Amino acid sequence: MDSGEALEKLEALLRVIGLKKNEIRIYRLLVEKKRGMRIREIQKELGISERSVRAHVLSLYRKGLLRRELIQRGWLGYVYLPVSPVEILQKIKASIIQRIEELEKEFKS
Amino acid sequence: MDSGEALEKLEALLRVIGLKKNEIRIYRLLVEKKRGMRIREIQKELGISERSVRAHVLSLYRKGLLRRELIQRGWLGYVYLPVSPVEILQKIKASIIQRIEELEKEFKS
Repeated sequence: MDSGEALEKLEALLRVIGLKKNEIRIYRLLVEKKRGMRIREIQKELGISERSVRAHVLSLYRKGLLRRELIQRGWLGYVYLPVSPVEILQKIKASIIQRIEELEKEFKS
Repeated sequence: MDSGEALEKLEALLRVIGLKKNEIRIYRLLVEKKRGMRIREIQKELGISERSVRAHVLSLYRKGLLRRELIQRGWLGYVYLPVSPVEILQKIKASIIQRIEELEKEFKS
């Protein structure tokens, strides 16, 4: 399995847990660019409206898939970076285990 | 969460891991009946063709969701029983953990 294949399997998993197609495109872009990007840069790369990019980036940030850094470089603003696939896999694993164990308890009681 | 609700959550999980609608109906029927059933009885209850019931039951059996007992009672044949929800949840959990950990290794290497 090469890294592109591994990334595709991660994306399939992200779809299963309910991520939207454009959220996954944004996450993938940030993984590929290997540097922090501003909302406007993401918007230009993907050709999605700024409003949509803002909503998707916020959603990814809240779900723990992106982190952000406040940058002052002439302008002041956030750049977004991807949380590493390994960290995301660990979070997904923990969340799935928790949900299944809650359900196990229900059936045992 | 009552037991019907817990069963619905289990069914949602079974759909996510790729079970067909009629496979889930057969599993649910066997859980509700609380006794072993023959192919023909399942077919009559659900109104699906015998050929389909055979294929679905075989698939559920291979996936570890049903067990069977050879019965001799005038006739000789198998009756099918559901594997308990708790056992199924444990299998699903083990399988998901294994898949995620394989993917983790790919990203770490």
